[in-house]
Amino acid sequence: MRDQALAYASEHQQLHIEQLMELLCIPSVSTLPEHKPAVRRAAEWVRNYLQNIGMSRVELIETTGHPAVYAEWLGADPSAPTVLIYGHYDVQPTDPDNEWRTSPFSPTVIGDDLYARGAADDKGPFFALLAAVACYLQSAGRIPVNIKVLAEGEEEVTSTNLPLIVAERATQLACDTILIADHPMATPEVGILMYGVRGNLYTELEVRTLPHDLHSGTFGGVAPNAFNVICQIIATLTDQHGKIAVPGFYDRVRELSTDERALINGGLANEAVVLALTGASALIGEAEYSVAERMSVRPTLDVHGIRGGFIGAGSKTVIPAVAVAKISMRTVPDQDSHDLFALLDAHIQSVTPPSAHAMLRALDSSQPTIINYQHLAVQLAEEAYRLTFGATPLYMRGGGSLPILAEFQQQLRQNGHPVPIVMIGLGLPDDNIHAPNEKLHLPIFYRGITMIIRYFALLGTELAASERLHPDGAP
Amino acid sequence: MRDQALAYASEHQQLHIEQLMELLCIPSVSTLPEHKPAVRRAAEWVRNYLQNIGMSRVELIETTGHPAVYAEWLGADPSAPTVLIYGHYDVQPTDPDNEWRTSPFSPTVIGDDLYARGAADDKGPFFALLAAVACYLQSAGRIPVNIKVLAEGEEEVTSTNLPLIVAERATQLACDTILIADHPMATPEVGILMYGVRGNLYTELEVRTLPHDLHSGTFGGVAPNAFNVICQIIATLTDQHGKIAVPGFYDRVRELSTDERALINGGLANEAVVLALTGASALIGEAEYSVAERMSVRPTLDVHGIRGGFIGAGSKTVIPAVAVAKISMRTVPDQDSHDLFALLDAHIQSVTPPSAHAMLRALDSSQPTIINYQHLAVQLAEEAYRLTFGATPLYMRGGGSLPILAEFQQQLRQNGHPVPIVMIGLGLPDDNIHAPNEKLHLPIFYRGITMIIRYFALLGTELAASERLHPDGAP
Repeated sequence: MRDQALAYASEHQQLHIEQLMELLCIPSVSTLPEHKPAVRRAAEWVRNYLQNIGMSRVELIETTGHPAVYAEWLGADPSAPTVLIYGHYDVQPTDPDNEWRTSPFSPTVIGDDLYARGAADDKGPFFALLAAVACYLQSAGRIPVNIKVLAEGEEEVTSTNLPLIVAERATQLACDTILIADHPMATPEVGILMYGVRGNLYTELEVRTLPHDLHSGTFGGVAPNAFNVICQIIATLTDQHGKIAVPGFYDRVRELSTDERALINGGLANEAVVLALTGASALIGEAEYSVAERMSVRPTLDVHGIRGGFIGAGSKTVIPAVAVAKISMRTVPDQDSHDLFALLDAHIQSVTPPSAHAMLRALDSSQPTIINYQHLAVQLAEEAYRLTFGATPLYMRGGGSLPILAEFQQQLRQNGHPVPIVMIGLGLPDDNIHAPNEKLHLPIFYRGITMIIRYFALLGTELAASERLHPDGAP
Repeated sequence: MRDQALAYASEHQQLHIEQLMELLCIPSVSTLPEHKPAVRRAAEWVRNYLQNIGMSRVELIETTGHPAVYAEWLGADPSAPTVLIYGHYDVQPTDPDNEWRTSPFSPTVIGDDLYARGAADDKGPFFALLAAVACYLQSAGRIPVNIKVLAEGEEEVTSTNLPLIVAERATQLACDTILIADHPMATPEVGILMYGVRGNLYTELEVRTLPHDLHSGTFGGVAPNAFNVICQIIATLTDQHGKIAVPGFYDRVRELSTDERALINGGLANEAVVLALTGASALIGEAEYSVAERMSVRPTLDVHGIRGGFIGAGSKTVIPAVAVAKISMRTVPDQDSHDLFALLDAHIQSVTPPSAHAMLRALDSSQPTIINYQHLAVQLAEEAYRLTFGATPLYMRGGGSLPILAEFQQQLRQNGHPVPIVMIGLGLPDDNIHAPNEKLHLPIFYRGITMIIRYFALLGTELAASERLHPDGAP
């Protein structure tokens, strides 16, 4: 069965790339209201694909936001485990558009790379999971494991509706392991198994100093300027190295054990590598933590942009009345987003001068997560990586956020324990996700499909036999 | 002759407001390339008006930017002085557009006020000067003084081409006094004679930390963020009170004499008044200087906006590679814009971290100016104010900038001295110039026309007889 699927994958690389390119043509930017119909079209494309490859109970799940998609195939042996595949078909905005060398929604192959918004995050890797399922069903007519698929169109806007779906459908979604491909490999050979992610607290800070804009010729020197003030406030949020200077911010950050510190620092991320990947002339961050640690297990604070004032061509001499900064923090265990919001707000109010009014709003938040990387389902993914790419993958905690992980851990449990979440990487660190010129490295895409075919086969034999899956001895 | 003109003005208020509204309908925003044809239409409107009221040698002066307009009427008595009227028909942009209660280029009368972009800065007051000329020519067929008019469409973009015109046409523009109306009165009764202006240094600070944007999930904690850095840099430019913290910035600021300090503080600007005018909850600035001094004879630094990053709806987690802040400084005698640029640049480079590259560009600059307020041409304007509005006007130095003043002072001289520049105010402090809901108070507009009619009459008799005009005894 596995070998039939592998042969099918090998013979249908062109088909898989063409199918992926169809999905990449759909501009499913979930954060922009004008792209709402496109997110639905992406959902419908995924639904149709799952129907066409032979999945059952295929369903477009309506929400108050963008629709989700569910499908299942439960025809495996009675002892076989059930894998829940999770992925997302929404993408980030494309700005700054003038920095793209190709049109972001006209997927273009240049050499070994496929350029398009969403190529790496997450349409490409997610489609590799589905294509592996298709290889089994189209060749052998069956799969070594039961498969459920849950895909959403709101991952880039903090998965607003998915927690509700997971909670309402916990029985339908019951499974033995959850499989996600939504992060990079370390190199084209060395994969990464991610066993945790940072949380996220995304805020808007609005500073108002005046009822309306004024002229700096008339009132310059006495009228408070919202941009001068917001820069003064933001400058107090971090020190010059990027360490967060909000009192109490680090109080609940869990320090690493010696073992975990060694595991995390066993990866390829070091100063030279990250300088090369980013193109920065120097890195920032806490000197007492390694580059790998700063990127994954330490919190961060980034300003994404500041709205208001005059940014057109020329020289308008306005004293802006309002400035709105988008500021987000990556959080780590055991920080809590609600607590951090309160700390940040209190600090901001304490440094806001009497001439200004500051208001902090939370736009999104998600909690940080850790998974038990010693679970057999994770270790079999290590084996699948090794069999396919010829190298042992690295273990790391991710620097990004997957808001749904915490929800999965809470709702989908077995014998009182969270179902293990296996996160494999099928991108590369320089894929420019969330940036211009996002790309997918096609050799990894093709090998990724075969790796997943192997992983299903390993799960079908090893995990079924393992007492880890059935700790109470139940069949 | 004067009384005929006054009677004509009284009988034609409706005509004058209708003519002004025609000019206000033209969206002559000089800083926005797409409005270039509109600036030309405004120039043509002024040209046509001057032709229609009987001026001679009316000319549209082409430049590499927006056209200027010249006209003259030289039919006064041989002993009569010559007045050069200067004004501008370009306007500021209208953003933020959603804060306007009326459409900015659909002039709308509400009560005693006319709302439109340019109503107060400077189409309304400039047109009052022209209308006074028209009142003489249409009623008596002559004026007590010779009149020259030089108007431009680039005042809001630092009068790029006017210095060239003034230098090339210094002989054509020869005059005994220059008359400008481009600032507010203190109240509807108390005028302001402005005898100096601040200079302006308008810059863009570009901070680059990366070759392109990155994802804060992948690289947050190590990748330098252009917005975090630019806020840190901007925060070092001023202290929390708004005092400029760039080393050496105040070295050449001229301190006031006791007399001039009394003059400037004899105005109406105090903390309570400016709080009411601005709507601010507290004022900023140097505690050791009065509010009036901070607004006019002390330098300022304002951030107008910061371009780059993500400012759309939603929560894009980008680490911006580039941020560009628009930052301007109002300068005062004897500061020099070139020196200040060098000081600012050196300071910025000294506080920029190794992870970032900062580049400072000068967009525009103009020098500060002072005029001898004891000249008879200025004092006759005080008399015209008193005769018309019933109150003695205040003397002040303006907080804004009129870049052309320094050029006038250099090019248009008599007997080795700069020709006096008489700056009268016909707006109000709450006219919202450079901001939404700009307006002109119509009772001042009508009385302004009669004041200028009286001023021309006073100049025709008093200034002609004065030895101040002919210090060498020449006829």
